[in-house]
Amino acid sequence: MVHMCRWLAYSGTPMLLDNILYKPRHSLIDQSLHSRMGVETTNGDGFGIGWYAADLDTPAIIRDIGPAWNNRNLREISRHVTSPLFFAHVRASTGTAIQQTNCHPFRHGRWLWMHNGAITDFHRLRRDLSLAVDPALFSCIEGSTDSEVMFFLALTFGLDQDVPGAVARMAGLVERTGHEHGVEFPVQMTVAVTDGESLWAFRYSSEHTSRSLFYSSRVDSLRELHPDLWFLQGVSEETRLVVSEPLGDLPDAWHEVPESTFGVVRPGQDELLPFEPAAPDGIAA
Amino acid sequence: MVHMCRWLAYSGTPMLLDNILYKPRHSLIDQSLHSRMGVETTNGDGFGIGWYAADLDTPAIIRDIGPAWNNRNLREISRHVTSPLFFAHVRASTGTAIQQTNCHPFRHGRWLWMHNGAITDFHRLRRDLSLAVDPALFSCIEGSTDSEVMFFLALTFGLDQDVPGAVARMAGLVERTGHEHGVEFPVQMTVAVTDGESLWAFRYSSEHTSRSLFYSSRVDSLRELHPDLWFLQGVSEETRLVVSEPLGDLPDAWHEVPESTFGVVRPGQDELLPFEPAAPDGIAA
Amino acid sequence: MVHMCRWLAYSGTPMLLDNILYKPRHSLIDQSLHSRMGVETTNGDGFGIGWYAADLDTPAIIRDIGPAWNNRNLREISRHVTSPLFFAHVRASTGTAIQQTNCHPFRHGRWLWMHNGAITDFHRLRRDLSLAVDPALFSCIEGSTDSEVMFFLALTFGLDQDVPGAVARMAGLVERTGHEHGVEFPVQMTVAVTDGESLWAFRYSSEHTSRSLFYSSRVDSLRELHPDLWFLQGVSEETRLVVSEPLGDLPDAWHEVPESTFGVVRPGQDELLPFEPAAPDGIAA
Amino acid sequence: MVHMCRWLAYSGTPMLLDNILYKPRHSLIDQSLHSRMGVETTNGDGFGIGWYAADLDTPAIIRDIGPAWNNRNLREISRHVTSPLFFAHVRASTGTAIQQTNCHPFRHGRWLWMHNGAITDFHRLRRDLSLAVDPALFSCIEGSTDSEVMFFLALTFGLDQDVPGAVARMAGLVERTGHEHGVEFPVQMTVAVTDGESLWAFRYSSEHTSRSLFYSSRVDSLRELHPDLWFLQGVSEETRLVVSEPLGDLPDAWHEVPESTFGVVRPGQDELLPFEPAAPDGIAA
Repeated sequence: MVHMCRWLAYSGTPMLLDNILYKPRHSLIDQSLHSRMGVETTNGDGFGIGWYAADLDTPAIIRDIGPAWNNRNLREISRHVTSPLFFAHVRASTGTAIQQTNCHPFRHGRWLWMHNGAITDFHRLRRDLSLAVDPALFSCIEGSTDSEVMFFLALTFGLDQDVPGAVARMAGLVERTGHEHGVEFPVQMTVAVTDGESLWAFRYSSEHTSRSLFYSSRVDSLRELHPDLWFLQGVSEETRLVVSEPLGDLPDAWHEVPESTFGVVRPGQDELLPFEPAAPDGIAA
Repeated sequence: MVHMCRWLAYSGTPMLLDNILYKPRHSLIDQSLHSRMGVETTNGDGFGIGWYAADLDTPAIIRDIGPAWNNRNLREISRHVTSPLFFAHVRASTGTAIQQTNCHPFRHGRWLWMHNGAITDFHRLRRDLSLAVDPALFSCIEGSTDSEVMFFLALTFGLDQDVPGAVARMAGLVERTGHEHGVEFPVQMTVAVTDGESLWAFRYSSEHTSRSLFYSSRVDSLRELHPDLWFLQGVSEETRLVVSEPLGDLPDAWHEVPESTFGVVRPGQDELLPFEPAAPDGIAA
Repeated sequence: MVHMCRWLAYSGTPMLLDNILYKPRHSLIDQSLHSRMGVETTNGDGFGIGWYAADLDTPAIIRDIGPAWNNRNLREISRHVTSPLFFAHVRASTGTAIQQTNCHPFRHGRWLWMHNGAITDFHRLRRDLSLAVDPALFSCIEGSTDSEVMFFLALTFGLDQDVPGAVARMAGLVERTGHEHGVEFPVQMTVAVTDGESLWAFRYSSEHTSRSLFYSSRVDSLRELHPDLWFLQGVSEETRLVVSEPLGDLPDAWHEVPESTFGVVRPGQDELLPFEPAAPDGIAA
Repeated sequence: MVHMCRWLAYSGTPMLLDNILYKPRHSLIDQSLHSRMGVETTNGDGFGIGWYAADLDTPAIIRDIGPAWNNRNLREISRHVTSPLFFAHVRASTGTAIQQTNCHPFRHGRWLWMHNGAITDFHRLRRDLSLAVDPALFSCIEGSTDSEVMFFLALTFGLDQDVPGAVARMAGLVERTGHEHGVEFPVQMTVAVTDGESLWAFRYSSEHTSRSLFYSSRVDSLRELHPDLWFLQGVSEETRLVVSEPLGDLPDAWHEVPESTFGVVRPGQDELLPFEPAAPDGIAA
């Protein structure tokens, strides 16, 4: 069984977190208790949010080990923090320790990373993958998840210079390492990553049956579909949501990210492009 | 919406808690994640166990605010503690604070108490019901649940001398107080209570549509039905389980406690008797 | 033994919480681990902060049951939240349950309340004091501390109209109730309370040996004394800190609030005035 | 600054944990709040206990991230669990994450391990030391402490066959790795380890200024010194306590373990022997 988390990424007009995290009919917090599309119906093994504030370089992250749905501190923060770019994640573990350092999003410098999926048989691949992490980054690993190792591999492979390339090399390394250990389909992932300006979202699995991933329609369509969502009135056309599972019941409000695809949300022009794992340069076979 | 917890009470041959709490196919811990018969499908807002040890007067209670299903300490205790009489409870809150003192079972001296159900509109009745608690017991109330107030009312009404009578007077006071505040159906409850020797279980609701409650068949029938449950081999005929929801899929293994009924499990003779709220003596109308 | 918490209240130029909570040499977070003037040297039984944001009516509160000194979420919030008016509190319990609802500050509507001290023999007075709370507010009590009951008594006695009067009547009721139960010195308190605009701080004890309370010097003196505190450069002359224990080692930076005194910090004019308990109107003896 | 925890190991006549953990005047739980000999005066960053039950192969471990002194579940377990061999540990972190998997004791199969001290500059050595762990054990590492890596290194070096030899090779590897990274004094440790039958305690530091370690006098002397400790009456002559810091104020009740020494407590004959790090066989320089 794979673990199935849920996540959400928002980019656009500065927004009170509450409007996105709690207000929608099928919000992420609601999904923490009753997910509809996930393998697990409950995502109660911890949660996290990360957000960028106006004039600070490093995003804030808040993570806790209980369920999101009953967390009062999360509710308080959501009602008092406004941000143009934020991540939120609710976790379903399949045995990995329930601890803050295993909760998403993960942060390094100005980067945030979150993941839904799994590296198959991670306990068998964990050592080899950990060794491939840049030695200078190794001691930054605080938890025991596949997701955090994937993040530090992507950082190792040049996330700072070339996001899609670094993620492709990370996935390539996981696939190669998995195959060396006899794992047929090593990767199952939807990943969101941001540097505080652009937002990248990846959907990929070795078996080509990836977990769901959706992005929101243009804001003008959303407004038409959701006249109830008053907070969409002042929102720019470039505002986007990327989510594991649609918020609300309006199919037209959401577009599915295709298999083996990644998207970029940034001021100016959004893009959807094909994604394939790549050979991890500089790592000896 | 009422809150719907799940609970289990065991009485009989000393048993490793693990055998009852984790081993069955549809165990209480499994129910914490996937309840089938409850209104809420998830009971992740805290849990508790209480058990009696051989030569100690007061039962132990362990309570925590996270979900039961991922709690390692609960698993450790379950695998290392054996007891002839124990309670376990998984909680689903509808807004009441997530805190240890709101988790069941509640303890006072040698007594344990746990509850599934709700006092309707408890926030409106809470003050009047709290005032009816014996002033000498008032300061023992540590949490904010209806369940704890029900326990202290039952103690006030003579739980020490007459368990069914005290519970009936408690339910009677709740109904009278509710009616005074215009609440039509104030009580919805399944309650388990024990003094370490006998075990009482009550099923009652003002509307006569009470939450489910079951007790196990005779052990010889259980053994026949569950040849897989090896730990039943050495168990006495007097061993009984009372549960909110059956463990496992064998309908013949479980009997439903009828509406407005209470049962007593004790050495010698089990009984099922009718239950009705009674006038709470000594409390001025 | 009384419980001894530590608290801090800030009012003035909008300030990053981190500058006040973590940066000073003997900061509140440092005091949570090594208090110097308190009876207890460790304040590790929970903490809380409350702050007002620009255009929101209700302050945010974040409270948690672990120690402040190792809490990463508190650190994250402190580094990303700026506020013109905030409270912070670190708790030392003497047996009262360790739970979020027993952590300060307490909130009701736009009000925040925090307390250092104790009602002597509170377990004996708790019922009578709770009954004196306005029945419409009774169900808002979520925890089991004397501090929360004091807050709801002050609300009952007109905090909304007359803060010093309401606090005086609360203290008067506690003294009268204590004396009725044979408690010689019922009140020991330093209290901070705010409606988001003005800040009141009270120092009083029945025995006239109250816990310590200090307010900061004028900002221009502070700047002279603390050239290292760069963030004081842009701060208005009206900025004030009120604290249980001075931050840092500069005696000239802090003035002690005298016994039986309260202060008001508000735009325009700060004041120090005498404080005495008053007869609680409308409560039958 | 090094982190300074406190620990206690008990071996002998089956004993209620409460008698050892809470009853003594300067008990370990008291030390969690007010340590006298440690560098840190507060050990409030988590705690753990491990114990062996009569007929079970694997010890139980209970670990939590809050302070020991206010933990009700720890108190409950201590009052209801009796064991002939148990460990207890209170943690003071210097920045390593506060999480269950960083709390002692650590367990692997029938082994328990706990530690007070630090590997100097562990963040620089962590990768090399982790790589020296047996690849089959690597995925068992769940936390981020030096203590856990030391345990898995000792397991790698044959703890199962030769405890003092395995610990010596572990310490030897840490010293060699430290020296390779320019760390002058890499090891500072007092370690307790047990297989459920014998108990080994090590005191060593590269600088030969090790953290304190004590073992109890013979029970007959203890009884004479502590007539108040009634529970010592029925205790066998072979009962021993090994502790970071004496419990109580009687100097004659405790003997200091000398520098660079280890002791073995087992049925029959206790021993104190010299300890020196050894060359870690089979690890390439």
